[in-house]
Amino acid sequence: MVNVHVYITLKEGVLDPQGKAVEHSLTALGYEGVEEVNVGKWIQLKVEDGEGLDARITAMCEQLLANPVIENYSYKVEREATV
Amino acid sequence: MVNVHVYITLKEGVLDPQGKAVEHSLTALGYEGVEEVNVGKWIQLKVEDGEGLDARITAMCEQLLANPVIENYSYKVEREATV
Repeated sequence: MVNVHVYITLKEGVLDPQGKAVEHSLTALGYEGVEEVNVGKWIQLKVEDGEGLDARITAMCEQLLANPVIENYSYKVEREATV
Repeated sequence: MVNVHVYITLKEGVLDPQGKAVEHSLTALGYEGVEEVNVGKWIQLKVEDGEGLDARITAMCEQLLANPVIENYSYKVEREATV
């Protein structure tokens, strides 16, 4: 099994009300100089290693994890070192 | 301004219904060998650089971005290279 981290964020130009809400709240709490807040998702999962791993991860992202119409995603695979 | 990335995830032992839902959906869609799905948040923001940056980011995380009772968070600061 490998650890997969998927990072999902809204595409440029897509309204991010959650990000706006966080930005306003931070300002209201007295944190000055905070801009461009964007709230995305960070999904961690363990996936069976082997042939076609990248293709499988891409398919999972496109089909379920992200919405490719409005979201960008990237992922990284972490293999545990075997000593 | 520096780019700050905050990564938030539920603590071990806290029920993650969203993660479970994603795991079941992936299995239902035919993706075998997927385990331990955990859905967290990835918040990006721009913050004024300067003294006490780490303290300010930590305060924002503790006070608003994360719920320290049930969530762990980490962050990284990205400074744009000036040529």
